[in-house]
Amino acid sequence: MALSEQLQEHKKTLLLAIEKDDRELLDQWLPELRAADFSEILEEMAEDDGDLPTVMKLLDCLPLERRANVLGYLTGEVQVDIAEAMSDELLLSVLEEMGSDERADLFNLLDEDRKEVLLRRMARQEREDLKRLASYEEGTAGSIMTSDYVAIPSGMTVSQAMMRVRQTAPDAETVYQLYIIDRDGKLAGTLSLRQLMVARPGAQVDDLMIKDVISVPVDEAQEEVARLVARYDMLAVPVIDHDERLVGIVTHDDAMDVAEEEATEDFHKGMSIGQLEDGVSRVPIWSLYRKRVTWLVLLVFANLFSGAGIAYFEDTIAAQVALVFFLPLLIGSGGNAGAQAATLMVRGMATGDVGVKDWGKLLGRELLVAGALGLTMALAVAPIGVMRGGEAVAMVVAMSMVTIVLFGSLLGMCLPFVLNRVGWDPATASAPLVTTVIDACGVVIYFTIATAILTGL
Amino acid sequence: MALSEQLQEHKKTLLLAIEKDDRELLDQWLPELRAADFSEILEEMAEDDGDLPTVMKLLDCLPLERRANVLGYLTGEVQVDIAEAMSDELLLSVLEEMGSDERADLFNLLDEDRKEVLLRRMARQEREDLKRLASYEEGTAGSIMTSDYVAIPSGMTVSQAMMRVRQTAPDAETVYQLYIIDRDGKLAGTLSLRQLMVARPGAQVDDLMIKDVISVPVDEAQEEVARLVARYDMLAVPVIDHDERLVGIVTHDDAMDVAEEEATEDFHKGMSIGQLEDGVSRVPIWSLYRKRVTWLVLLVFANLFSGAGIAYFEDTIAAQVALVFFLPLLIGSGGNAGAQAATLMVRGMATGDVGVKDWGKLLGRELLVAGALGLTMALAVAPIGVMRGGEAVAMVVAMSMVTIVLFGSLLGMCLPFVLNRVGWDPATASAPLVTTVIDACGVVIYFTIATAILTGL
Repeated sequence: MALSEQLQEHKKTLLLAIEKDDRELLDQWLPELRAADFSEILEEMAEDDGDLPTVMKLLDCLPLERRANVLGYLTGEVQVDIAEAMSDELLLSVLEEMGSDERADLFNLLDEDRKEVLLRRMARQEREDLKRLASYEEGTAGSIMTSDYVAIPSGMTVSQAMMRVRQTAPDAETVYQLYIIDRDGKLAGTLSLRQLMVARPGAQVDDLMIKDVISVPVDEAQEEVARLVARYDMLAVPVIDHDERLVGIVTHDDAMDVAEEEATEDFHKGMSIGQLEDGVSRVPIWSLYRKRVTWLVLLVFANLFSGAGIAYFEDTIAAQVALVFFLPLLIGSGGNAGAQAATLMVRGMATGDVGVKDWGKLLGRELLVAGALGLTMALAVAPIGVMRGGEAVAMVVAMSMVTIVLFGSLLGMCLPFVLNRVGWDPATASAPLVTTVIDACGVVIYFTIATAILTGL
Repeated sequence: MALSEQLQEHKKTLLLAIEKDDRELLDQWLPELRAADFSEILEEMAEDDGDLPTVMKLLDCLPLERRANVLGYLTGEVQVDIAEAMSDELLLSVLEEMGSDERADLFNLLDEDRKEVLLRRMARQEREDLKRLASYEEGTAGSIMTSDYVAIPSGMTVSQAMMRVRQTAPDAETVYQLYIIDRDGKLAGTLSLRQLMVARPGAQVDDLMIKDVISVPVDEAQEEVARLVARYDMLAVPVIDHDERLVGIVTHDDAMDVAEEEATEDFHKGMSIGQLEDGVSRVPIWSLYRKRVTWLVLLVFANLFSGAGIAYFEDTIAAQVALVFFLPLLIGSGGNAGAQAATLMVRGMATGDVGVKDWGKLLGRELLVAGALGLTMALAVAPIGVMRGGEAVAMVVAMSMVTIVLFGSLLGMCLPFVLNRVGWDPATASAPLVTTVIDACGVVIYFTIATAILTGL
């Protein structure tokens, strides 16, 4: 990622200060840099400049807590490089200061020997917590949750709960949503700090709490978690295990990160690109090649069906070469209309706006819209048909246009539903796939109509 | 949007209760429904069933505050229908209970006469606030901000500030981030409620507050606001006017809504679909047609260039009809590779991962990746070229494949940057546009190579 101009300036100042070993300048600059910005500078130093020693020197200038905070913003790759350059002791202290979710993520990236060493030196409770968080499968609620929430035992009064909030504040990820736990560790209810603040100090939290809590199971898909947080405007959503015990929370900022990640993934799928582990400017070239080549080669073979279609109609083409002029236009238009329909469906399904049940209703709508689109496009192209090949060719082109657009749109609309039915991600119904299928069918439709009309005349 | 099965059940129960006028059942059910869910049921009743009377009856059963809350979740269209069915007096009370941002949005949708009547009956301060919020341009920070924030006058002690938070709590959108205002109304600093809670009661907020506040100007684009909130994991971002006075805040949930809206918009643009005002299942058919037809017809004319290219090479085609077999394959492959490159760039630019400055570096990478992709695809297709048209045709096809894929990828990569340069949204560099341009160039590249090699032999 390119640094903004401002960050470039900051980077220069930092490099200069390190070079001159100017502690005063560093002490003045470093506290002003926000973790999100500082980490971006470090990321560029470590990745693009390959200058890990300077990164380590800069990190050494930070107090432990900030160091942990900045580390959490870096990509996994750079985190591992830094962790490997740290002593066990230092790494342990830094891990301790990290949020529990980020700690588990970093831990999962270390090699097995290092994990063993670190675990052995941790306190029992910390070890259990880390092992538990690190064990959840990627992409589930468990893998993005934090265990740093404020739990209030059932039976406390408001003033007792308030005291508990004050005690937990330094370590908790959020203190603004409180979770009331009964004697079995089950989630009994929730209460916002706002509600707690305006309540009578002697009141019981059990009387104030909301009992009908929105929660997610620990193996829920992370995109579903993000959707819930957005839908109900939550600060955090509690995560429960199979015994309904509270095991963590997913905060709004982590949910927002997931939503952005999912949108990017769907975008790339929509253009037949595999999932990239990082931003396009950072991912290795070889990996970029691999993520793109599979689909492209598959589409090459799919495209050969169009060629086979053309070969079959060789006589028609030889008799009327003008037909070839309109070939890219017709199959292109069908593909475009189909890709539009597919995109609308895929995005509608991703945002939860379209369900499988809407299929019937939407099919009717798409028939109407696609019919109108096809007619408009046929009218636009008919005069050119007359100019280039006469009235008969114009008729062939216009009729083919309506048929191909109608067919392409319906196919584009149905494909996401079909894929969803067989358990695939509808986002795989990408524009290139839809376009290629329509290309092959478009060829057949076009020349069938042409053969019928031109040999009939 | 299709209701989930659970919500369908709720809807049935509600309809039954209304039909039988069973107040007891309603009083039991309504408090259990969350605003986000209840509003979805009402939305379907109003839009799909056209049953506004039932919607009004159900709303009448709610206390004023909840009614305002539910109303805020509905689409603008349904909000207006409901507002029109309400007396001025009732509408005024409901507006008063709404969040200031949602109030301004609804107000903007009413007709001029109604606006006048309502404004005349409001208290002066309320009127000024509403007029101000309603005046900001769509898509700016001002249009999505709320004025219901907690302002703490500079000079207060921690315990005084705490008291102020308690007083403001019922009306504020969030009480978790506090804004310290100096005598001129300027934003002097910010403080989280968490920091306030753990501070000594006699301390001065001015000594505790963070002075280097991240804020946005009132005319900042809303997507930029969403990006800041996500980047710095903020609960809310303060909005300031040109005199640096605090005029509102944008909360994390509204920022998340903006981010989702923007992603959907970019998705649709990526497939040449205009911006829809609502979900695809709800938007009127006529509007769906209009949003899709413009680009499709434009692309029809753009596609005619391909036809012109083919016409120019009529002799080459007539001499070797087998060339036509490979036409859809070659231009399709170029389009696919180009659309991939464009998608990677567009999404990278939207998430802030790719800047205009990265252009040079990325161009070099894309040359390498596209070259490798083109070679792979040429190897895949060469044997089929031999089978269908002999070695000479195979050579033409393979060479054309490499050239077209390379050209398509570079064009797909450059187009978003060029559009950005001339001030257009890069997301307009949609797959269909890239594909169509590459189609036309692909035809010329293919037949030029074919003419050179085949007539040379």
